[in-house]
Amino acid sequence: MAMGSRVLALYHKTSNTLRSYHPHLPKLIAVVAVGGGGFVAYNTLNGSNTVDPSVKKKRVVVLGTGWAGTSFLKDLDSSQYDIQVVSPRNYFAFTPLLPSVTCGTVEPRSIVEPIRNIMKKKGGDIGFLEAECFKIDPQNKSVHCRSVKQANLEGKEEFIVDYDYLVVAMGARSNTFNTPGVEEHTHFLKEIEDAQNIRRNVIDCFEKASLPNLTEEERKKNLHFVVVGGGPTGVEFAAELHDYIKKDLSKLYPTVKDLVKITLLEAADHILGMFDKRITEFAEEKFQRDGIDVKLGSMVVKVTDKDICTKEKSKEGVSSIPYGMIVWSTGIGTRPVISEFMKQVGQVNRRALATDEWLRVDGSDSIYALGDCASINQRKVMDDIADIFKKADKDNSGTLTVKELQDVVNDICERYPQVQLYMKNKSMKNIVQLLEESKGDNEKESKELDIERFKSALSAVDSKMKFLPATAQVAAQQGQYLAKCFNRMNECEQTPEGPLRMRKDGRHRFHPFRYRHLGQFAPLGGEQTAFQLPGDHVSIGYSSQWLWYSVYASKQVSWRNRMLVVSDWTRRFIYGRDSSRI
Amino acid sequence: MAMGSRVLALYHKTSNTLRSYHPHLPKLIAVVAVGGGGFVAYNTLNGSNTVDPSVKKKRVVVLGTGWAGTSFLKDLDSSQYDIQVVSPRNYFAFTPLLPSVTCGTVEPRSIVEPIRNIMKKKGGDIGFLEAECFKIDPQNKSVHCRSVKQANLEGKEEFIVDYDYLVVAMGARSNTFNTPGVEEHTHFLKEIEDAQNIRRNVIDCFEKASLPNLTEEERKKNLHFVVVGGGPTGVEFAAELHDYIKKDLSKLYPTVKDLVKITLLEAADHILGMFDKRITEFAEEKFQRDGIDVKLGSMVVKVTDKDICTKEKSKEGVSSIPYGMIVWSTGIGTRPVISEFMKQVGQVNRRALATDEWLRVDGSDSIYALGDCASINQRKVMDDIADIFKKADKDNSGTLTVKELQDVVNDICERYPQVQLYMKNKSMKNIVQLLEESKGDNEKESKELDIERFKSALSAVDSKMKFLPATAQVAAQQGQYLAKCFNRMNECEQTPEGPLRMRKDGRHRFHPFRYRHLGQFAPLGGEQTAFQLPGDHVSIGYSSQWLWYSVYASKQVSWRNRMLVVSDWTRRFIYGRDSSRI
Repeated sequence: MAMGSRVLALYHKTSNTLRSYHPHLPKLIAVVAVGGGGFVAYNTLNGSNTVDPSVKKKRVVVLGTGWAGTSFLKDLDSSQYDIQVVSPRNYFAFTPLLPSVTCGTVEPRSIVEPIRNIMKKKGGDIGFLEAECFKIDPQNKSVHCRSVKQANLEGKEEFIVDYDYLVVAMGARSNTFNTPGVEEHTHFLKEIEDAQNIRRNVIDCFEKASLPNLTEEERKKNLHFVVVGGGPTGVEFAAELHDYIKKDLSKLYPTVKDLVKITLLEAADHILGMFDKRITEFAEEKFQRDGIDVKLGSMVVKVTDKDICTKEKSKEGVSSIPYGMIVWSTGIGTRPVISEFMKQVGQVNRRALATDEWLRVDGSDSIYALGDCASINQRKVMDDIADIFKKADKDNSGTLTVKELQDVVNDICERYPQVQLYMKNKSMKNIVQLLEESKGDNEKESKELDIERFKSALSAVDSKMKFLPATAQVAAQQGQYLAKCFNRMNECEQTPEGPLRMRKDGRHRFHPFRYRHLGQFAPLGGEQTAFQLPGDHVSIGYSSQWLWYSVYASKQVSWRNRMLVVSDWTRRFIYGRDSSRI
Repeated sequence: MAMGSRVLALYHKTSNTLRSYHPHLPKLIAVVAVGGGGFVAYNTLNGSNTVDPSVKKKRVVVLGTGWAGTSFLKDLDSSQYDIQVVSPRNYFAFTPLLPSVTCGTVEPRSIVEPIRNIMKKKGGDIGFLEAECFKIDPQNKSVHCRSVKQANLEGKEEFIVDYDYLVVAMGARSNTFNTPGVEEHTHFLKEIEDAQNIRRNVIDCFEKASLPNLTEEERKKNLHFVVVGGGPTGVEFAAELHDYIKKDLSKLYPTVKDLVKITLLEAADHILGMFDKRITEFAEEKFQRDGIDVKLGSMVVKVTDKDICTKEKSKEGVSSIPYGMIVWSTGIGTRPVISEFMKQVGQVNRRALATDEWLRVDGSDSIYALGDCASINQRKVMDDIADIFKKADKDNSGTLTVKELQDVVNDICERYPQVQLYMKNKSMKNIVQLLEESKGDNEKESKELDIERFKSALSAVDSKMKFLPATAQVAAQQGQYLAKCFNRMNECEQTPEGPLRMRKDGRHRFHPFRYRHLGQFAPLGGEQTAFQLPGDHVSIGYSSQWLWYSVYASKQVSWRNRMLVVSDWTRRFIYGRDSSRI
């Protein structure tokens, strides 16, 4: 089996190679004997029976080394493509542990994996360029990049990389909602450097509060930690910080420990809004017990070097609170290079790059986008309703029989997942039942359906369209999915495996991307973590469970990372967290 | 015994306390019954038999948390003093492992120990201020300090700390010899931050060399690592870097690995000049085998953003070499605050603060200096020769008998260690023999010595005066020594234990500081380390031996640090060094 599939892969590779070299050759130029393992390739042009190794492979350029980019890179068959990775970070970071890094529970190097390690393991034609892409040029199929370090490059810090396929996985930046002062005075928590800066700054606040001559009020101010945003990151940071202060810092800074205050500001009515109500309640109660001041319905309107100004939902006017340090974690915004590119491809007023269900950027043939910088523009049933009807009505009778419907129902459900979600929601078994429901009482006996009935039966399904959250899990699955598509590109071009095309002939090459939710977790400080698993399963368990979680939910985390994190935990267990300001 | 000494300590503490409160009280106000453990203190003023706890302890201010400061702090009895530590770094760093940090063999946090951890373990009145001392004011017995972080302090970032005793242990800065461009374009290797920057920069150089469009010459330039200074630090860094590149980076950057070059510039005729010739030769040969280009007799005259300009001893003119990165490690210079203080106390044209043999700053009563910022000004025998003679000549006869000499010989040898060194060098058994040597043939029978003979006998001993090297070992021993003196300050004031004062009456309070050389080690990359132990013992062994060395030579390294370093080595052994640019 393995032998057979390897030979098959070789066949595809060969035929692809030949095709790209001699595009007008008849398609069947390679005769493959599968089974016994024999392999003969007839090159009809020059009679040679070996493949020219100088034939150019398609160039895939991957922008970004986050969850999406790395997961794509890990699964991509590097023997089929000439791969170039461009990213300002030469490593992948396991971001869910970033809040732990802010307090030294885990060391930064334990949660990163150098991209070149991954490349070395894969082998093949992979290059890495430590640079930032600042312009995508779809006309010329190239990206403009700039090295992150300019010194010693003699004006060669900018360069152009050409691509046949471009995979945009540049992630997002922190969203400030254009609140004045946020960029200058707060800490984000998206990158390793952010976490390191926060760690240093927490210690700075304690050291400053320990200096002589300060009034008690000034000490309190320096020890007022404000977290803006009650999402998983903000909540975890607040919880970690509380734990760090209680277990370690209060012993090292006994004179000021009682002046510490942690405030969590959330504009909505609850923290952890995307989680089950039980988890939200548990977290809010725990924070209250811990003395973390959770202010709900509180919107930040301005940040100065001294105060953070908020507007409460329930009150008039703006109140100012002095702070020692602010961590800003209110969701994600669009990177300038992505906004610029969106303008070029005619996408405006969007947060992220729109792609089709195959992760291909709308309006572009060879550009794919995934992860936080992209969002899938799920096609509405109602937009295609006439085409769907026409496709199903094979005999062009103007009505659909049950038989006709059953022939296309799988394709419809695959192409428009909202149909299935809608039926699941209404506890319907199949599409026939859905159509039955729409019939009037006097039509119950009728076996056929006209376009109007069909329309009205499906009229509500689009309400069930789902947008995917901007999470590591989605990004990782997209990367994996896209790599699989790339690996089977030639195979699927010849024998498409996707659903029927409704507006054209034939089938889509690939199955569309389908997200499989594996659950979410929200660490709540110290040893506690809340888990929300698919179905209705909610549990509050030990933080160490993330390890188990990482095993089952993510291929990104290497065993090296896991061992390092466990060794960090052991160190912390024995010696506490390090409070050196380095 | 333990009980007795504790009672004794309590007695000293009490009497000291009473004395500082009522300085004019007769000295014997406390009657102590040692042995049975009974303790009664009579306060003659108010008849109370308890000690007033509000009595102020003497304030000791320690500047610096390096080897000297930390070792002093660790051994100081915190129940006797009110201790204030001022340092811009809130941790102690085990600096001999800094070169290992530059390449990720060891993690920075594994070699630091937060000062507040040490304080917590000690207990007592110890405060830490994360600030830099920028002025010492001996007139007002205070130091002027500035917080290392200014934000949020409302103009209170500068403050004054008063002291009764000041311990200056601020270390030194890197010496640039005023070579233009060094500050701007090279990396020093003195602090943890330096090592972290170097680590990032090495990776930067490799990433830059991997960018497209560069000529081979430009790539070579980016991968040219220059180390200036062939001392232990420079040599170890060059060796570590070579090992890192060979074992790890060459696999991750296969396309550019052959363009790497390491050059070591040393102005003297040999590297590791302070070591035994066998070690120097071994290191030079090893570097040659490794392809590290060692340029001896090469002086750097200028550094620009592109080139490093050197003057060779053997040649005319200046040659320019393009570089990717320079690490500058040519010894130590004086910190500005120390230079300023030296001017105030009338010490000019010196590299470091001059102290007497008891580490007290010349010309100051309550200021001590140790470590790299200080140097002991060993008193010359010839300067005191008349006084020594007078002191020895008890009967004022104008001549010394053997008996008279034997009474003071120990004091002379303790006060002037060069006498002993001189005798050891000449293989003499005792001072009598030394004096015999100076006699003319016709005086051999004479039993007595006049001043002129005495002078001529000792005339050469001052040539054996030794200056202590600026090493961690010296600093640590000085800290320990000074702490012991401080702990026994009252005891020794009443019963001085030092040598006879030659120019005044009585004895010195304490024995003078005596350095005990425990050997030196110079890691030569990878697993190799050269050891030079006292006596004539030289060995080339495994790097892991530093651990053994640390156990026997340094109390500074905590078991926590040792475990962390071993765990780093284990990580590296399994996974190689991390090349992420963080």
